[in-house]
Amino acid sequence: MITPRILKGTRDFLPEQMARRNYVRQKIEAIFKSFAYSPMETPVIEYAETILGKVGEDGNKQIYTFDDNGGRQIALRFDQTVPLARFVSMYAGDLPMPFKRYEINRVWRAEKPQKGRLREFYQCDIDVIGTESLIADADIAKTVDTVFRELGFSDYVITVNSRRLMNALLGSYGIEAVDAPAIIRSIDKKDKIGMPAVKKELVALGISPDTVDQLLQRLEKKATNEETLALFDDLDVSEMSDFLTLAQQYGIDAEKIVFDPSLARGLDYYTGIVYEVVIPGTDYGSLCGGGRYDDLAGLFSKKNYPGVGVAFGFERIMLVMEERGMLDTISVPTDILVTIFDDQCVADSLKIYSMLTDAGINSEVYIEPSKLAKQFKYADRKKIPFVVVQGPDESANGSVTIRIMESGKQKTIPVSQLVAYISSLT
Amino acid sequence: MITPRILKGTRDFLPEQMARRNYVRQKIEAIFKSFAYSPMETPVIEYAETILGKVGEDGNKQIYTFDDNGGRQIALRFDQTVPLARFVSMYAGDLPMPFKRYEINRVWRAEKPQKGRLREFYQCDIDVIGTESLIADADIAKTVDTVFRELGFSDYVITVNSRRLMNALLGSYGIEAVDAPAIIRSIDKKDKIGMPAVKKELVALGISPDTVDQLLQRLEKKATNEETLALFDDLDVSEMSDFLTLAQQYGIDAEKIVFDPSLARGLDYYTGIVYEVVIPGTDYGSLCGGGRYDDLAGLFSKKNYPGVGVAFGFERIMLVMEERGMLDTISVPTDILVTIFDDQCVADSLKIYSMLTDAGINSEVYIEPSKLAKQFKYADRKKIPFVVVQGPDESANGSVTIRIMESGKQKTIPVSQLVAYISSLT
Repeated sequence: MITPRILKGTRDFLPEQMARRNYVRQKIEAIFKSFAYSPMETPVIEYAETILGKVGEDGNKQIYTFDDNGGRQIALRFDQTVPLARFVSMYAGDLPMPFKRYEINRVWRAEKPQKGRLREFYQCDIDVIGTESLIADADIAKTVDTVFRELGFSDYVITVNSRRLMNALLGSYGIEAVDAPAIIRSIDKKDKIGMPAVKKELVALGISPDTVDQLLQRLEKKATNEETLALFDDLDVSEMSDFLTLAQQYGIDAEKIVFDPSLARGLDYYTGIVYEVVIPGTDYGSLCGGGRYDDLAGLFSKKNYPGVGVAFGFERIMLVMEERGMLDTISVPTDILVTIFDDQCVADSLKIYSMLTDAGINSEVYIEPSKLAKQFKYADRKKIPFVVVQGPDESANGSVTIRIMESGKQKTIPVSQLVAYISSLT
Repeated sequence: MITPRILKGTRDFLPEQMARRNYVRQKIEAIFKSFAYSPMETPVIEYAETILGKVGEDGNKQIYTFDDNGGRQIALRFDQTVPLARFVSMYAGDLPMPFKRYEINRVWRAEKPQKGRLREFYQCDIDVIGTESLIADADIAKTVDTVFRELGFSDYVITVNSRRLMNALLGSYGIEAVDAPAIIRSIDKKDKIGMPAVKKELVALGISPDTVDQLLQRLEKKATNEETLALFDDLDVSEMSDFLTLAQQYGIDAEKIVFDPSLARGLDYYTGIVYEVVIPGTDYGSLCGGGRYDDLAGLFSKKNYPGVGVAFGFERIMLVMEERGMLDTISVPTDILVTIFDDQCVADSLKIYSMLTDAGINSEVYIEPSKLAKQFKYADRKKIPFVVVQGPDESANGSVTIRIMESGKQKTIPVSQLVAYISSLT
């Protein structure tokens, strides 16, 4: 006998969890579609050289790689951006440009699993490829804003910053562009390790303590975006100010967009606006993040594909919504259970069931003759709100009894009225 | 530079393909739900011993296996039944029993890819676990029938047979139960290798040529299920006749269920009713197949879980629907493109766009100021039916021009009437 178990950092989902996950996923997907992001999909298994990319042959311990029977090196994708880069470089001619895409799918990390770190999880990505226009950056922000609002969040904010501005700021202290990424990566850790530790790191990177103090002080955001912008009137703030104007023209509530000059987002390849969705006053961390990149597919193509995109952390969003009870009313959507009173009643019960399914009512017939109490318990467990019973008495006079599970109330009506009655209840 | 390519037998899906795949998938899923099959999900990566199961340590060349960084043996699932068995043995106490489940997900085969054989593809499974009642078998048939009808097929049939009857038939020729699986596997190949080759194989298995002739003659179906049933009145046909009665009571059209005593379905573990959906007169092969099993989770549990289930061949269904033009009208569902006439018009165009998104209309704003001709071409390419233009003239008097892409007709109306007008068109 094999012990039934699964790998740590992977999960099974039971029906009630799946119903809630599907609800959130479908809501997100519907919004992506309504903003004209198009679906696409890439394989789970790819050539390792594609997935490892710049990481090279030594491999990256975070990426699952293996050899197949034919000696090919295979990898499981660890994000949805590297496969997108490959995809765009292969099919650019077949895609409408600018290309707005979404993908909601699994990714894998060969990590040591711990709280909040999974080996297999879902991401929801949107990207606009093939344009440098800031309208695309605002379009992403509008879609992000709509997703969180429609999911029922009210206390989120979309924190934004401009990489161009951050680079200009670093330049004003004499820091060269080539040194900027290491500094940005360090600043990015401020929420994890705290500002004093960031200061130490920056000094260790060769910046004078005075400069570090001045720099970090200038990265503190003010009460309003306008006040924060005003801090940088010695620098070119056009990217951020144009973005804020566009976001407003897109109809995003002003208080939902927060310009935070300390927002770094670690990845080196961001070159313009960067975003992060957080819930201030909580330690949930980032629920969504991304930014603009100059060159998506540089690894695969000589052609430049500038773009902008974000990934929604589906698992973290689920966690927060579960913790806050935002999904308590979501369940598997069966409206009625048709019971089978006994062996003699099978034909009549199936006739009733066929009436319901023909009418397009989400319904279920109990799959074997059993004690009624057991069938009621089953309905209760599956949170099915209505149960239909037709015993010999009801059968004789062409009626059915409907039980409303929540109240325990019962009502006997003619079979011919069943569909109309159920439709009035649901 | 890395050559962008994917593994043979895996596929990228572009937006238009994805729209069609999502349409079919969502239709199937909605029907599963309406018949009260509950969603569940298991991980893609599992312990190899779970996935390999009886196949043992040598591994099965068809299954992708590899060692992770921690020296654990991992495998990618090759079907959705083995993980279901593990799942049921782990969570039976938390599941409503009988347990009706569905899963629509990817599976992997480490095969040499060829026409119709993929390394990565989708399956759609439904199962009823924990009951021996034939009502479950009929419930599966009803769901299968509804799926194919609602997808728009009219010429399919659900071919069915009874393993109990086949075993009884073999027994009547003195063939022992232990030899039955090899014989059934051979009969299963009749459509691939032809009856003469099956005859040869059966003789090679030690059955006399006379017996083989008699046996195969008895496996020929007649014009109606009743006539075919009558051929076996010397044997116990109760499983098949009860199933046919239940299928009728479930409201399945009589001509959609065809009792074919030669239907074998290769897998050894089927013990009762077996099914296969085919389109007679075509060589599309099986679009859906499955059957009843006595003991789902024997590998993982001492407890017996009888059940019945089928897997829909999603990729083959897609292939047939594409070939038959059944998906020609399905496209990415954006109703309107709002153009941006020039840089000066950005604010006004975004205002119009916000009106549309606030009204819940699936719409898109062209993401950068460009020549109008380019924007029209984009709409054409994405099959967006309506395009909105507001140039300086329209802006001055608060109007917009709407172009109906199919006819090329244009109409100028006040901005205030836009949402109502679009709603009347879509």
